[in-house]
Amino acid sequence: MAARKQDNETAARLKAFGGGIVDTIYRGRNPSFEAPTRSRSNIKYDEKEAVLRLGAAKEERSFINIAQSKKFMQTIAVASRCHTFLNENLHTSIRGLYYQLKFSLGEDVDENLFEEQSESNPLIEDLEVALGVKREDLNLSADRKGFLAGNMRIVDSFGDERQEIDATKQGRGGWPIPSDVDNDIEFVDVKAKYVLSVEKDAIWQRLNEDRFWQKENCILITPKGQASRGTRRLIRKLSDMGLPVYVFNDCDAWGWYIYWTIKTGSMNLAYISNEIATPKARFLGVTMADIERYDFLKKLTMKANEMDLKRAQEMLSYPWINRHKEWVAELKKVMQTKTKLEQDSLQGPRLTFIGDYIRDKVRAQEFLP
Amino acid sequence: MAARKQDNETAARLKAFGGGIVDTIYRGRNPSFEAPTRSRSNIKYDEKEAVLRLGAAKEERSFINIAQSKKFMQTIAVASRCHTFLNENLHTSIRGLYYQLKFSLGEDVDENLFEEQSESNPLIEDLEVALGVKREDLNLSADRKGFLAGNMRIVDSFGDERQEIDATKQGRGGWPIPSDVDNDIEFVDVKAKYVLSVEKDAIWQRLNEDRFWQKENCILITPKGQASRGTRRLIRKLSDMGLPVYVFNDCDAWGWYIYWTIKTGSMNLAYISNEIATPKARFLGVTMADIERYDFLKKLTMKANEMDLKRAQEMLSYPWINRHKEWVAELKKVMQTKTKLEQDSLQGPRLTFIGDYIRDKVRAQEFLP
Repeated sequence: MAARKQDNETAARLKAFGGGIVDTIYRGRNPSFEAPTRSRSNIKYDEKEAVLRLGAAKEERSFINIAQSKKFMQTIAVASRCHTFLNENLHTSIRGLYYQLKFSLGEDVDENLFEEQSESNPLIEDLEVALGVKREDLNLSADRKGFLAGNMRIVDSFGDERQEIDATKQGRGGWPIPSDVDNDIEFVDVKAKYVLSVEKDAIWQRLNEDRFWQKENCILITPKGQASRGTRRLIRKLSDMGLPVYVFNDCDAWGWYIYWTIKTGSMNLAYISNEIATPKARFLGVTMADIERYDFLKKLTMKANEMDLKRAQEMLSYPWINRHKEWVAELKKVMQTKTKLEQDSLQGPRLTFIGDYIRDKVRAQEFLP
Repeated sequence: MAARKQDNETAARLKAFGGGIVDTIYRGRNPSFEAPTRSRSNIKYDEKEAVLRLGAAKEERSFINIAQSKKFMQTIAVASRCHTFLNENLHTSIRGLYYQLKFSLGEDVDENLFEEQSESNPLIEDLEVALGVKREDLNLSADRKGFLAGNMRIVDSFGDERQEIDATKQGRGGWPIPSDVDNDIEFVDVKAKYVLSVEKDAIWQRLNEDRFWQKENCILITPKGQASRGTRRLIRKLSDMGLPVYVFNDCDAWGWYIYWTIKTGSMNLAYISNEIATPKARFLGVTMADIERYDFLKKLTMKANEMDLKRAQEMLSYPWINRHKEWVAELKKVMQTKTKLEQDSLQGPRLTFIGDYIRDKVRAQEFLP
């Protein structure tokens, strides 16, 4: 079995973490560790990096502290189990981890440390931030979602086998984006010129059928709604390779939210924004401004619902959004007209119109920031 | 572009449908068509085929009938648009179809026939049953969901290209099951011995990592929760090729529902059960009976919620379920103990235990009917 660089790094960090705690105990001290606070009050918008990040506040988890003792022991149990997964070179979900912890904590421990998965989940995050790794590095798979097609190859060193996947030859299905796009996976011969992320799988399929990625030489991705950790990380990696990233979503609460999550990261995952946010992403459409150019869209708008209007209002209050006059104009227009627009509507005149629309915007480099 | 047999058949049926209506008009008669009633009262359990099906009740849609005139016109508009899609050899979603209808009904029609997608959706079903085709045959894609790995190849004649996909070489991702597994798609060299469908994608990934499909020579599928139309149709096709189908789900309301939907079809899609239900499917686990064999499962059970108990009660009232004493025992045990069990719990002792569990059941051919 191939040794995995990242595994070794992560395993070494886990070992150092455990070793530090053992040392402290032998020295007769109270074992403890520190992790950045993940509560909302410690989430800041980082002007320089243009992402949501954790601030400087830290929390200590200490063993000899009645309020923290159980959590401390639980975290050590999580760390120990993940270390085993890395050694075995096997993966599981956070639910699988929970059942392992519930099954047994070891031969000499009779305690039932975990009652609910809600107890183990935040401890995994504690470990991620304390060690500076992602859960994927701990061999814990997150939900996967999203598909890709375009001019690149994927080298998937999956167990003992090295499998090459040509992302131009995946038929109607595309390549399903996994949870972990860092360990044992490489993206090679990326010859496309840009990345296009389209919100809905149905639109991705429409564009895939038109061979849009081939004609335009782009990497066509759909996160299939809100982007998974894996899809966000993949988009960031492609951005780091120098490919511009354009996001094509609905003009509504969900569409905007999906875009800003890709671009600046999200509150929940602010602790890994530096790996999964793509500050260089641009919003291609659809926009309220499109209605002025494409007259037929007027009759294809929908009534905005309360969530759309509330979200538009909220976004106008975020300094990293309201500094852009184009976004202010967009969001105000939604609130004034109380309408919204779906990307699907661009199929109105003919099914292939949607590709022409994107092509025109990319050629004119007409994006929202 | 390759001519598609099924397209031609479907296009011919659409043409005959339209031609019949035109003829009737020329003869000065009231154009109309008949379709089986899809309401619950006309859904029966077919003893012989062991699936849920539509009964004999039919409804007439007639043009000269104030209550039906608009619907009649709308159905013709849907049929006409689908005929165009078939001629163009292009696909869209039912939402894409809705926007096309809303955009324009043709140069000489100024009427806005459609206000909401909820108006066009049931008309598509009308057409499916009236013509005896599936919406996939009309080039309307349904949501896709589910993955597959195993000893078989897929030949995907996608547009102008014929792409071969080896389902043993898809890495950690597997082959994403499309909406349409009939038209322009072939399953060749199916050398596996049986089909294993596992409810959760996380468990599928666990088994895929263990190369379970290779060691056991099976086709490993996950519907990823409730099975999509495409996944149900694929399972049925593999069953028709002679492969036994084993379903491995949670022992709870959802797990049972997913199984029975695969096996007998569902109320909503009773009109196409003869194509997407797999009466020969068997339930592998997890079961309440497993707790007696695997002692460790005792402490990994969960409290059944109200939905689980209600569903168990309902299932006991279905004659096609309560005729099986094994199912009656299972469901009664859930109701008595008020507990349930997840497939993930089999990872408790070690991550690879889940494969051993399945292997043992398959070898012993120990299934619920």
